[in-house]
Amino acid sequence: MQQAVELLAVITSGVYGVMLAKRHHMDFVGVFSLALIVAFGGGTLRDLFLDRHPLFWIGRHHYTVIIFILALVTSVFPALPKSTEDFLHLPDSLGLGLFSVAGAIAALEAGTSLFIASLMGVITGTFGGVIGDIVCNKVPSLFRPAPLCATCSFSGCWLLFSLTALSVPESYAVPVAISSIVLFRLAAIRWNWQLPHDPVETDDGN
Amino acid sequence: MQQAVELLAVITSGVYGVMLAKRHHMDFVGVFSLALIVAFGGGTLRDLFLDRHPLFWIGRHHYTVIIFILALVTSVFPALPKSTEDFLHLPDSLGLGLFSVAGAIAALEAGTSLFIASLMGVITGTFGGVIGDIVCNKVPSLFRPAPLCATCSFSGCWLLFSLTALSVPESYAVPVAISSIVLFRLAAIRWNWQLPHDPVETDDGN
Amino acid sequence: MQQAVELLAVITSGVYGVMLAKRHHMDFVGVFSLALIVAFGGGTLRDLFLDRHPLFWIGRHHYTVIIFILALVTSVFPALPKSTEDFLHLPDSLGLGLFSVAGAIAALEAGTSLFIASLMGVITGTFGGVIGDIVCNKVPSLFRPAPLCATCSFSGCWLLFSLTALSVPESYAVPVAISSIVLFRLAAIRWNWQLPHDPVETDDGN
Repeated sequence: MQQAVELLAVITSGVYGVMLAKRHHMDFVGVFSLALIVAFGGGTLRDLFLDRHPLFWIGRHHYTVIIFILALVTSVFPALPKSTEDFLHLPDSLGLGLFSVAGAIAALEAGTSLFIASLMGVITGTFGGVIGDIVCNKVPSLFRPAPLCATCSFSGCWLLFSLTALSVPESYAVPVAISSIVLFRLAAIRWNWQLPHDPVETDDGN
Repeated sequence: MQQAVELLAVITSGVYGVMLAKRHHMDFVGVFSLALIVAFGGGTLRDLFLDRHPLFWIGRHHYTVIIFILALVTSVFPALPKSTEDFLHLPDSLGLGLFSVAGAIAALEAGTSLFIASLMGVITGTFGGVIGDIVCNKVPSLFRPAPLCATCSFSGCWLLFSLTALSVPESYAVPVAISSIVLFRLAAIRWNWQLPHDPVETDDGN
Repeated sequence: MQQAVELLAVITSGVYGVMLAKRHHMDFVGVFSLALIVAFGGGTLRDLFLDRHPLFWIGRHHYTVIIFILALVTSVFPALPKSTEDFLHLPDSLGLGLFSVAGAIAALEAGTSLFIASLMGVITGTFGGVIGDIVCNKVPSLFRPAPLCATCSFSGCWLLFSLTALSVPESYAVPVAISSIVLFRLAAIRWNWQLPHDPVETDDGN
C-alpha cells in the first residue's frame, strides 16, 4: 500500500517536472532532467542532510526508469493541456502528504530534534519543486503568496509527533497525519487559503 | 564567548536572508526559508563537502528555532527600513570573520590541504548569501564588482595558517585572524575597495 | 595518460567557466568561482550522491590550485576572443568523454544499477555547466534545443556497459567508449544534430 502511494507520488512529481520543462520549451534532456529533479530533489536533500545512503532513488532504482519512460511518453505530446494541472491536484496532494511524513520519520530515525524533523518533512515534500523552479530561472513559487503548501506539510508533521506523544500506535498516526496534509492542501487550493502578505505586491511575479 | 559570536553570526545572516526575502515580496514560508538558506547554506556546503555529520545546524538544533522566531518577529513588519543594512555591517563582518575561520579550521581537521582549507573558509563565510541570491533569481553579488568580501575571508584564512606555521598558539592566532577579516571587511565597505574590473560594465546589474 | 586527459578536462571546463563569468562582467572572485563550479560541479554531485569521500577535487588538491592560476592568468585579458569557443570544441569533447566514463565507472564500483550508472556518467560529464548556467541566472543550455551533448554521454556509457557485458577487457572498452563520446559530440556540433523539438519556440531564449 505505502509502496503504491510512494510510486504514485514519484510519478505525480515527475509529471509536474515535465510540465515545467515543456513550459520552458526544453527538449527531451530537459524534460527528463526536470522530471528527475522535481521527483527526487526534496528526498535527495533530506538524504544528503541526514547522511542516508544509498539515496532513495539509487536504492529503488526502478524509480529512475519509470521517470525515463514518463518523459519519453510525454515528450510525444507537443504540450500537456492546461487542465492536466487541475487533474493533478489529488495525486499531488497525496505526494505532498506521503513525502512529508516519510521525510519526518526518516529524520526522527536519524535522531534529530522534532523541529528539525518537521523541517525535513517539509523539505522532502516540497523542495523538489523549489529546485525545479530555481533551475527554470524563477523565484520558487513555494516562497511567494499562494495557497498553503509548506504550512500543510509542517502542521501534518506536528500532528504526527503529537499523536505519537499521546501513544497512538504508528499504524494509526501515520495515515491520519498523511490524510490531514492531503485534506488541508486540497482545502487550501479549493478556497485559496494563503498566509498573510502585503496585498499590493503579489502581482509583480516573474 | 565563541558560542556567543557564532550565535550572533547566525542571527545576522538570518536577518540578511529576511531582508532578501522581503525585497522579493515573499510570504512567511519564503522569509523563513531564505533566512535558513543564508544562515546555514555556507556551513552546509562545507559539512557536505567534508563529510561532517551531523550538519552543524542539525547538531545545534536550537539554531533553527532561533531563525524561526526571527522570521516570525520580522514578518510582522511590512519591510525592514533600508538603514537596517548599515546597522548590520558590524555583525555581518563579525559573522564573515567567525564563519570563515571556523570553516578553515574544520577543513584542516578533516585533513585537507591549506589551499582547500582557505576555500572552505571562504565558502563557509560567504556562500549562504550566494545561494540566497541564486534562489532569488539574481547573479550572486559576491561574484560581481563590489566592496571586497571573499578576499577578506581568503586573506584572513592565510593569516591564520601563517601564524600557526610560526608556532603562534591557536588561542592568539584565531582571534587575530577573525579580527583581521572583520577590520579588512569594514574598511573595504567604508572606502569602497574593489578588485580591478572593467569600469564600464558594472552598471548592467540585474 | 588518463591523468593527463583528466587534467586537460579540468582545465577545459575551467576555461568554459571563465568565459561564462566574463560574459556576466564578474570580477576575479566570480571568475575563479565559476571556473571551480563548472570544472568540479558535476563530479561533486556524483561524489555526494554516491557518498565518495574525499571529493575528487579535495583528494587531488592541485586541481584547485591549477584553476586558481587559470583564473589569475585569464583575468588579465579584458575578454576572451569569441573564437576561443571554437578552439575549445576538441578539449571540451575530450572532457565530456572522460568525465562521463569516469562517472559511470565510479557508480558501478559503488554498486548502482546500470541505468543509474549511466545517469551518473551524464551528470559527471555535463552538470558542471548546468550549475554554472543556473548561477549565471539562465535556464541551463543542456536542457534546451542545441547540438547533442547529454545524449552523446549517455550512449557512450551504454556502449561501455555493452562491451563489458561482451567480455571485452576494460583496457579496450574504456578508450573505445571515451572515443565514441568525443566523436559523437564533435559530429553533433559539426552537423548540428539535435533532439526533436518544437521548431517555433527555440528562439525565445533567455
